[in-house]
Amino acid sequence: MRARELAAEVPTVMAGDPATHAVRVMVDEKLPGLVVIDADRRPLFVLPGSQVLRMLVSHYGGDTALARTIDEEHADQFWRELGVRAVTECVPPEKVKLAEVPADATLLEVAILMSRLRSPLVAVVDRDRRLVGCITLNALLDALALPDS
Amino acid sequence: MRARELAAEVPTVMAGDPATHAVRVMVDEKLPGLVVIDADRRPLFVLPGSQVLRMLVSHYGGDTALARTIDEEHADQFWRELGVRAVTECVPPEKVKLAEVPADATLLEVAILMSRLRSPLVAVVDRDRRLVGCITLNALLDALALPDS
Repeated sequence: MRARELAAEVPTVMAGDPATHAVRVMVDEKLPGLVVIDADRRPLFVLPGSQVLRMLVSHYGGDTALARTIDEEHADQFWRELGVRAVTECVPPEKVKLAEVPADATLLEVAILMSRLRSPLVAVVDRDRRLVGCITLNALLDALALPDS
Repeated sequence: MRARELAAEVPTVMAGDPATHAVRVMVDEKLPGLVVIDADRRPLFVLPGSQVLRMLVSHYGGDTALARTIDEEHADQFWRELGVRAVTECVPPEKVKLAEVPADATLLEVAILMSRLRSPLVAVVDRDRRLVGCITLNALLDALALPDS
């Protein structure tokens, strides 16, 4: 089996989309992360879920003492502030990775990339680097013919 | 809301369990990672899914050229070999992290820890450091009252 056969169509987000929309897509689709694409459907980067969360947390500067004093009663305001920012504004460019494989990659190549980049989501692209679909970590493990334990 | 209220009971694995069993638990329960506990139900470490995958990949030494020549027709042998190894044998101790919060942590404290440790799963513990339950990234985002987009 090759990456193209396992690639599923999943909702993506655009770099200019509001950050709250990105989070909403991930939660609603129960995705482990997000593929951010450009207008030509070429992946720009793949965000693991924990980095999507970082978009939110950076709002508070990762200050644990501050977080202790703030709770979800302030969530409305929190989301309102975040909603005006675009995905790319919330993600430091030096931190993003492009977890991407060609359509003819083997499943083990996909596994190695996921493991190396610590990304539970990988974009599968054609020869023009246009998005064919995505592979989640759990879909990959399913496909690797895991025996019963 | 505090961590204890959001903590769900999820299957855990023991450090001595076979690696294949650990992978099976994660896939069957659609978990984003695994909490590994000791005999007293105290968390030893929390493995993000991509690190669970690393247990498998390390079998091939992360060698992409090698992976290109091997595919899932060899999966049976692959799993058989892996099945005899325990979880702790497959995880380099210097790489593991303990994503753990006290039961009275706020949701934002949980978010900051997940983000900092890049872990989509966090263990919630009581005062004796015994496991109360786990919080997944998507459960956390759901609870943070995300507005419709």
